[in-house]
Amino acid sequence: MTVSASAFWLLRGRLGRVSALGRSAVSPLAAPGTAGRAFRGFRSSVLRHDAIIISGTEMAKQIQKEIQRGVESWISLGNGRPHLSIILVGDNPASHTYVRKKIKAAAAVGICSEIILKPKDVSQEELLDITNQLNMDPRVSGILVQLPLPDHVDERTVCNGIAPEKDVDGFHIINIGRLCLDQHSLIPATASAVWEIIKRTGIETFGKNVVVAGRSKNAGMPIAMLLHTDGEHERPGGIPKLITSDMVKEGAAVIDVGINYVHDPMTGKTKLVGDVDFEAVKKKASFITPVPGGVGPMTVAMLLKNTLLAAKKIIY
Amino acid sequence: MTVSASAFWLLRGRLGRVSALGRSAVSPLAAPGTAGRAFRGFRSSVLRHDAIIISGTEMAKQIQKEIQRGVESWISLGNGRPHLSIILVGDNPASHTYVRKKIKAAAAVGICSEIILKPKDVSQEELLDITNQLNMDPRVSGILVQLPLPDHVDERTVCNGIAPEKDVDGFHIINIGRLCLDQHSLIPATASAVWEIIKRTGIETFGKNVVVAGRSKNAGMPIAMLLHTDGEHERPGGIPKLITSDMVKEGAAVIDVGINYVHDPMTGKTKLVGDVDFEAVKKKASFITPVPGGVGPMTVAMLLKNTLLAAKKIIY
Repeated sequence: MTVSASAFWLLRGRLGRVSALGRSAVSPLAAPGTAGRAFRGFRSSVLRHDAIIISGTEMAKQIQKEIQRGVESWISLGNGRPHLSIILVGDNPASHTYVRKKIKAAAAVGICSEIILKPKDVSQEELLDITNQLNMDPRVSGILVQLPLPDHVDERTVCNGIAPEKDVDGFHIINIGRLCLDQHSLIPATASAVWEIIKRTGIETFGKNVVVAGRSKNAGMPIAMLLHTDGEHERPGGIPKLITSDMVKEGAAVIDVGINYVHDPMTGKTKLVGDVDFEAVKKKASFITPVPGGVGPMTVAMLLKNTLLAAKKIIY
Repeated sequence: MTVSASAFWLLRGRLGRVSALGRSAVSPLAAPGTAGRAFRGFRSSVLRHDAIIISGTEMAKQIQKEIQRGVESWISLGNGRPHLSIILVGDNPASHTYVRKKIKAAAAVGICSEIILKPKDVSQEELLDITNQLNMDPRVSGILVQLPLPDHVDERTVCNGIAPEKDVDGFHIINIGRLCLDQHSLIPATASAVWEIIKRTGIETFGKNVVVAGRSKNAGMPIAMLLHTDGEHERPGGIPKLITSDMVKEGAAVIDVGINYVHDPMTGKTKLVGDVDFEAVKKKASFITPVPGGVGPMTVAMLLKNTLLAAKKIIY
């Protein structure tokens, strides 16, 4: 994956732990039932085969067939043909190549498209005027601004200038927010591509550790979010003494956000505890927050800080 | 931390790797310069001391003093007193306790507040009417809807009904999106509390592995985002052969998102490669995507899929 050597995500699904990098026993060609064979193949250390090379080209052809059928049935219901408007700024050769590929592929599946070409000295205001017009144009179903943009233009501002419902690159702040909350959203195409490759190949990620090497906000982060997600918005449970001293490294700093009310046999009263086995863990950690008297009062303080920030209109 | 046993985040900062759970050598009381002592204390295995118990109560008092000064200086400039409006639905005792604490703390720092109390059978429409009025009210600087809400009300819809600039709980989709993109935003108070405890205690997280146990969207996810973030929006670099076979587990599935143009000594031409040492890694992995012909064409296909989704208005 695109890597910035400075950081990675290690995510874990909802089942038991397995070692880093998800291992798949499922061949993209074989039925799930045959999965065991490849697995045994490794375990009984028979002759090692090279990896199955996943052809994104072939998979993309298949998906484009599906999209083409989707487009035709959509139109057959009396709807207008989907229309993609691409804003291309300057003369970056790579950007022009990418845009040509997108236009060509759109045509192949029956999606109308147009390129709005602007010189590299175009003003941010003009770009926002263009996105506004496209936002309001009922013929236009999707809008894409090919990145990167020249330095004098703020990419974030321009991405947020596209109506979220037409933001087919999924870079609008609302689409990012929805993605990070497991809500339906238009997902950034690269992250979506990785997800689709994994799903269609039958690679199992559920309950596995997955390393996402790369901390970029337009690739690594959304990929991590997709892989982390299970489509359910869960409320935190909170379990007294879930974190025991054997889980904690000598000298670790432990911050307990848990809130649990338990019956105290000593006093017969109900008392508040966190998720950490405080008495045992405090002997091993270098720093620890108690419950109550730890994160709780700090949370109230930070709420008030936010209120002051809001009053000062510092953020918005 | 609040834990759902089903998943965790393991994040890594920008420096070298250290083992799980950040270790701090810095006492919250001692100056940074004295950090080494505690560290040597561990290394030379002198008598092990219990963890320093971080008092959130004391830290919160300090922060509230700072907020109080901030409020007074803000008012002394002729500005109105910050005002927090809290919407409280039903008679959940815990919710009433939390709200009382917030009101009391607000008063202590000179922030006006009001509770808008509604019966548990209040309609979602009425709640949205209330947030609309508060959004438009120039006296109101912050709005908070105490969660949980009754089942017949969609919490997400109500949270998004608050103007982002008044959303002091930081749950609006735009504040979540901005947080996940390292932009300034109103940060959820619990995540903000954890961050502030770490920073003020002098616990070093830069370059360390930090385990965030808990996958909730209102605590675990924003905490993971804060800890992962370095405040810089980085573009992916992409480095040919950055991922070598020794990094890859036998049978792993490897998906390469890298795009690099390199000079091919054989042909003398420029060729496209990913970030993975393909020839070596394919001998060890179970699945691998090539570059070109892997993620690239899939990305284009997914863009078109998004365009069709947008045309069908399936998501918005």
